[in-house]
Amino acid sequence: MSAPKKVVLAYSGGLDTSIILKWLQTEYGCEVVTFTADLGQGEELDPARKKAELLGIKPENIFIEDVREEFVRDFVFPMFRANAVYEGLYLLGTSIARPLISKRLVEIAKETGADAVAHGATGKGNDQVRFELCAYALNPAIKVIAPWREWSLTSRTRLLEFAEQNQIPIAKDKRGEAPFSVDANLLHTSSEGKVLEDPGQMAPDYVYQRTDDPVTAPDTPEYIEVGFEKGDAVSINGEAMSPATILTKLNDYGRKHGIGRLDFVENRFVGMKSRGVYETPGGTILLEAHRGIEQITLDSGAGHLKDSIMPRYAELIYNGLWFSPEREMLQALVDKSQEHVTGTVKLMLFKGSARTVARWSDHSLYSEAHVTFEEDAGAYDQKDAQGFINLNALRLKLIAVRNARVKG
Amino acid sequence: MSAPKKVVLAYSGGLDTSIILKWLQTEYGCEVVTFTADLGQGEELDPARKKAELLGIKPENIFIEDVREEFVRDFVFPMFRANAVYEGLYLLGTSIARPLISKRLVEIAKETGADAVAHGATGKGNDQVRFELCAYALNPAIKVIAPWREWSLTSRTRLLEFAEQNQIPIAKDKRGEAPFSVDANLLHTSSEGKVLEDPGQMAPDYVYQRTDDPVTAPDTPEYIEVGFEKGDAVSINGEAMSPATILTKLNDYGRKHGIGRLDFVENRFVGMKSRGVYETPGGTILLEAHRGIEQITLDSGAGHLKDSIMPRYAELIYNGLWFSPEREMLQALVDKSQEHVTGTVKLMLFKGSARTVARWSDHSLYSEAHVTFEEDAGAYDQKDAQGFINLNALRLKLIAVRNARVKG
Amino acid sequence: MSAPKKVVLAYSGGLDTSIILKWLQTEYGCEVVTFTADLGQGEELDPARKKAELLGIKPENIFIEDVREEFVRDFVFPMFRANAVYEGLYLLGTSIARPLISKRLVEIAKETGADAVAHGATGKGNDQVRFELCAYALNPAIKVIAPWREWSLTSRTRLLEFAEQNQIPIAKDKRGEAPFSVDANLLHTSSEGKVLEDPGQMAPDYVYQRTDDPVTAPDTPEYIEVGFEKGDAVSINGEAMSPATILTKLNDYGRKHGIGRLDFVENRFVGMKSRGVYETPGGTILLEAHRGIEQITLDSGAGHLKDSIMPRYAELIYNGLWFSPEREMLQALVDKSQEHVTGTVKLMLFKGSARTVARWSDHSLYSEAHVTFEEDAGAYDQKDAQGFINLNALRLKLIAVRNARVKG
Amino acid sequence: MSAPKKVVLAYSGGLDTSIILKWLQTEYGCEVVTFTADLGQGEELDPARKKAELLGIKPENIFIEDVREEFVRDFVFPMFRANAVYEGLYLLGTSIARPLISKRLVEIAKETGADAVAHGATGKGNDQVRFELCAYALNPAIKVIAPWREWSLTSRTRLLEFAEQNQIPIAKDKRGEAPFSVDANLLHTSSEGKVLEDPGQMAPDYVYQRTDDPVTAPDTPEYIEVGFEKGDAVSINGEAMSPATILTKLNDYGRKHGIGRLDFVENRFVGMKSRGVYETPGGTILLEAHRGIEQITLDSGAGHLKDSIMPRYAELIYNGLWFSPEREMLQALVDKSQEHVTGTVKLMLFKGSARTVARWSDHSLYSEAHVTFEEDAGAYDQKDAQGFINLNALRLKLIAVRNARVKG
Repeated sequence: MSAPKKVVLAYSGGLDTSIILKWLQTEYGCEVVTFTADLGQGEELDPARKKAELLGIKPENIFIEDVREEFVRDFVFPMFRANAVYEGLYLLGTSIARPLISKRLVEIAKETGADAVAHGATGKGNDQVRFELCAYALNPAIKVIAPWREWSLTSRTRLLEFAEQNQIPIAKDKRGEAPFSVDANLLHTSSEGKVLEDPGQMAPDYVYQRTDDPVTAPDTPEYIEVGFEKGDAVSINGEAMSPATILTKLNDYGRKHGIGRLDFVENRFVGMKSRGVYETPGGTILLEAHRGIEQITLDSGAGHLKDSIMPRYAELIYNGLWFSPEREMLQALVDKSQEHVTGTVKLMLFKGSARTVARWSDHSLYSEAHVTFEEDAGAYDQKDAQGFINLNALRLKLIAVRNARVKG
Repeated sequence: MSAPKKVVLAYSGGLDTSIILKWLQTEYGCEVVTFTADLGQGEELDPARKKAELLGIKPENIFIEDVREEFVRDFVFPMFRANAVYEGLYLLGTSIARPLISKRLVEIAKETGADAVAHGATGKGNDQVRFELCAYALNPAIKVIAPWREWSLTSRTRLLEFAEQNQIPIAKDKRGEAPFSVDANLLHTSSEGKVLEDPGQMAPDYVYQRTDDPVTAPDTPEYIEVGFEKGDAVSINGEAMSPATILTKLNDYGRKHGIGRLDFVENRFVGMKSRGVYETPGGTILLEAHRGIEQITLDSGAGHLKDSIMPRYAELIYNGLWFSPEREMLQALVDKSQEHVTGTVKLMLFKGSARTVARWSDHSLYSEAHVTFEEDAGAYDQKDAQGFINLNALRLKLIAVRNARVKG
Repeated sequence: MSAPKKVVLAYSGGLDTSIILKWLQTEYGCEVVTFTADLGQGEELDPARKKAELLGIKPENIFIEDVREEFVRDFVFPMFRANAVYEGLYLLGTSIARPLISKRLVEIAKETGADAVAHGATGKGNDQVRFELCAYALNPAIKVIAPWREWSLTSRTRLLEFAEQNQIPIAKDKRGEAPFSVDANLLHTSSEGKVLEDPGQMAPDYVYQRTDDPVTAPDTPEYIEVGFEKGDAVSINGEAMSPATILTKLNDYGRKHGIGRLDFVENRFVGMKSRGVYETPGGTILLEAHRGIEQITLDSGAGHLKDSIMPRYAELIYNGLWFSPEREMLQALVDKSQEHVTGTVKLMLFKGSARTVARWSDHSLYSEAHVTFEEDAGAYDQKDAQGFINLNALRLKLIAVRNARVKG
Repeated sequence: MSAPKKVVLAYSGGLDTSIILKWLQTEYGCEVVTFTADLGQGEELDPARKKAELLGIKPENIFIEDVREEFVRDFVFPMFRANAVYEGLYLLGTSIARPLISKRLVEIAKETGADAVAHGATGKGNDQVRFELCAYALNPAIKVIAPWREWSLTSRTRLLEFAEQNQIPIAKDKRGEAPFSVDANLLHTSSEGKVLEDPGQMAPDYVYQRTDDPVTAPDTPEYIEVGFEKGDAVSINGEAMSPATILTKLNDYGRKHGIGRLDFVENRFVGMKSRGVYETPGGTILLEAHRGIEQITLDSGAGHLKDSIMPRYAELIYNGLWFSPEREMLQALVDKSQEHVTGTVKLMLFKGSARTVARWSDHSLYSEAHVTFEEDAGAYDQKDAQGFINLNALRLKLIAVRNARVKG
């Protein structure tokens, strides 16, 4: 790979990406463009602009964007249509943000004539894979620079030295090492590393930042109604809202009731296990609600097929393969199933849980006429069950006859 | 089907199966053998013996058995090795009890020279299918009698008339109709029908019988440790216990903390949707714990494969196909994966939830040496990630090049 | 089911469906509408009109249609995009014709104000299931009449008697029983029953009607080129043709070279095994060609996903579930994959086989620059393989370390 | 990785691996142990011993073994139980040989106290991945040396120079470059590279070495009978034979009749497409025969489950993951299905094709009594089909009613 001339950096404004910014300038002598996205991580973006300017980035090379609506509409919601969970429990909050960042990096590279993009992910994790697979899928000629895999700043001490040598301001609370590493966006906050590295030890309370403690959460359940159209949430308690607004609102509910905490050991794509603490307040409510509305609007054929491909779909997103033919094929399958996933779900929020307690829809397939314990006025002929069972049993009987014969 | 001469009836001792007993005698003039199983449903079995005697069953034709250990060891535990849930949420508490009952019915038929078995399931539900597919798989020549599909006692009034005409004692509280229908065993209690038939209406509080209300459950979390060997729970808080004892104990914990309530609309095998309320206190804890121990003892290859076949495995059990070649094939796959699923999980029980908070094992695949944010002494070479990403990206790049080319 | 008033009958003009026609008139006293489709079965349709008139059908109630183009374009081609084969070998020639017939029956019922449809499939086979599931999916209120499950004409003798009593002309060669039963359309000819009922006996030569004997087929290979666009065949040897014309032409090639014979024992949906002889001359060539073009235009992610869902897709079609949500979901997935399946395949046809020998495409993903044994000018860095292998090996190493540790 | 001290080399005795041998000695100054396996590739092994001695290998460090029986019994046969084909067509002949070689390399390393193994696979192919994943899975501490990824002998000229400089004898026919690259074992011969690199050009006739040209093959079909026990072939024409003998014999039949030629473009695990010509004469017959016997001995539940997991199983073998938990889990599933796959298949071999024409078994599930077109004496009640269809249709009707309602 020849040296890059102009690099678009995924820039948070924090110490680490500021060091990367400087390192790119000094190591490669290249022009740096910064991209700072508001994905709902809950930090102000203005300081990022000032810091970039301070580090010598030209104003026209500073891109700061609020991408929250795009994030929820084009990434989070499509994923939730699939009820995607990785390894049974993880709602993929970090994974789903990476494709959007890569997409904007590549687009900004095109706009600004840059030949490379750079990210601050380490060489041990999944994020490097996600950033890079997405970038290469969108522009096969792009160069990707991953300083953590290249440089010699392999300890906290050296990083701080480099910062000092290069006049990068260091906030006082960044002098010491953080007790764990955090990633956040509108969907979730993840914490990992350091104090969390022994999965046999309970996570300290202070790790949880995004949700209130279920123990101190309200002592009375709260009920909300989430409305859906074609698989996407469109309203809360009857009030229509934009995608990002809905997720923000559900996050508020989730935080208040301590919903969405997960202590988890997962298999990284790069081959090792890691332990993380995830907080997905609104997403956990949304998943429960989506399942609730599917219960009455999807038939078994559609539902079971979706269930059977879900683990693979989730794995693709986890592995950074959002922009792959197979994810798009599975999305086509999932989206096809959502045409009638329209209606309303009532949920009980209480002390760490969100539970569906009722659901209704004009698109419902539930037929009280068929299922009733009362007389059903001929909707269903119980005699049919006899034939249904007999033909389903036929092969089992033939097996039993065969097995008896060959044993005999 | 020629008329049966001797029938083994799945007999609870309750009004409905007593009416069936009598009806078999009068309709077919056949000898009746009763089988009453203690599956942990929480009812005394002695009255069933007395009632059977009262209805003229010979003592040698009355079979009353405690099958709780067999139930948990040979049915519940194998199923939990697969983390089986039906349609994302249902823990299959009713489904998994049916194969055992059918098995004993068929065995007792052989012992007693009976040519038929009978059950009290209706013609609209899944249980008829489960009972009969299991029975036919174990004895293809057996006759199965399903009175609810045959007789003319299609209303409560006629049933009670038949009971009175035949001197079947009717408990006072059985005169009126129950507000919903209940099935229970050591794994769960299900409620459905009547007051639950509108899935848009919340279930009344009195439906929940097996678990305390999370709202009034203890205000302080309780922590327990569940030990596993080869995928099966073997101890609680360090104390070794038999399978049924463990599940009983977990049920106690679950009841106390209001764990395992599910309000659910599902797709029956016979083609309609139904709404049920399930309470699976111990099972819900067990599932969470099993996932917790798998997190550190299964690698991604094994775990993802298990996840991908789970929905099909669960569907087979739901549909009554326990005794089918494909369930046995999937069980072989699942069991193979559990050889190292040994270790201990610590769970927090609180107000309706069971959450894994720590887990450890001699069989752990978690490598702190690899994952650490600290220097890893060469356990992992971050440079390897470059090649890993490049080769995983190769096909995506080739696609991007192709797509750009054909667009022109 | 109340008695039907007006019935649309799938009518071939042959003896059996003529008997059904009469039986419907006499048994139900209902008006009969006939639908006779040219699906490429190779029979003239004019006699069907005359015979229907003879049996008293009003001219406006006689529907005779050439549906070959619709058949290939909307049913055969979508299925071939998936490379669908049932149980590893069967190309689903009968299964795929049923949905179209049901669709037209239901449509004609609507046009003519009929409340029922009728078909001539027996109660043992798959076709009854296919006809009826498709009809119910398109019109849930339609009545379906399956005379073979209802009437008492259960022997050849009684059928002929009924025909004679009702002045139905009987062709001389229909007096005796056919030595086996045949179904044909543009995609295939199937033969089953009677002389074929022992799967341990070779099928007699005279069973094969659609293909020449490979032994007497030309002694010299013939090469053809099939062009594809978005997964569908569009040309042969550079000449553009309509879907039905292409399949007809491929059938000619296949017949000449004895291609597409299959002697097969399959599992029917209704639970029993049956043995059939299938001849699918053009379809066998088309499947080979489609696989050939996918080899260079689909990447592994898309291809492997398609392969993994194919058996389920084929099973759905076999079981008559064309008009089901899950088939439509899978079709969406498959169709999404075919956007670049465009190009040309060269095949060798010889003595019973069609083999891809070359393929090329503007949409090709094959990169000689990457794969070459020669110097590749930096297209591929062999060093990348090291990291790729190391990270793929990591979990295997951790397993091996664990296994050694616990063995002690 | 520290320098190896003693290396076990997969040694063919040919020029390339002789150069590697020498290079290992000179580059690392390490002791070399050679392992030469007779996998049925059709070359004499004695010259390998002489050549190794000539290159200074101590007699006790020369391992030459006939592993043909182990190869077929423990690798080929288990794979054929699954009917494994990669990407629809490839019988995995190269892939399945690699695990055995790696296994012996690692075992010999242990016996001889070696700390490394070495192979002659290039950095672009799958074989490096297979060798190394297998080796690491069996011994996580082993070093693997892949000279082709390391050395500077990147052209034919440099290789020959190195050989001359090191007194490695060069056969005259090895002076020029081979027109393509070959791998062979008892299961197949693969050819790739050079003259085959353009998939749009037909392979020259001289590429085919393992099978006679179908055009010149016998003009008369030959019939053989293959006997199976529990999924493995055990006899031909009634004569019992060992696994390797059977495959050898089937290869003779296949060669004679020109069976098993495949011109194929596949997706390599390392991300690129490659074109190969495969000849799998005996294996192609064996696959057809195995499918034939499964047709009557497996029921639909077992068969369809096998079909659905097959692509994944094949992919694992292709990717070198034989020694992985997930392959072993799938093998457990597959093996469980084969308990009754016992019986005999009759095949017609003719001009490039092997076709099942008859099959019989004491374990057959085929029931002529059920399927017959004749009166079946009550084996099957056609009325059952009505209930079967009605309940299978129920969900489709409910969907149709819903869809009409919401459109209305």
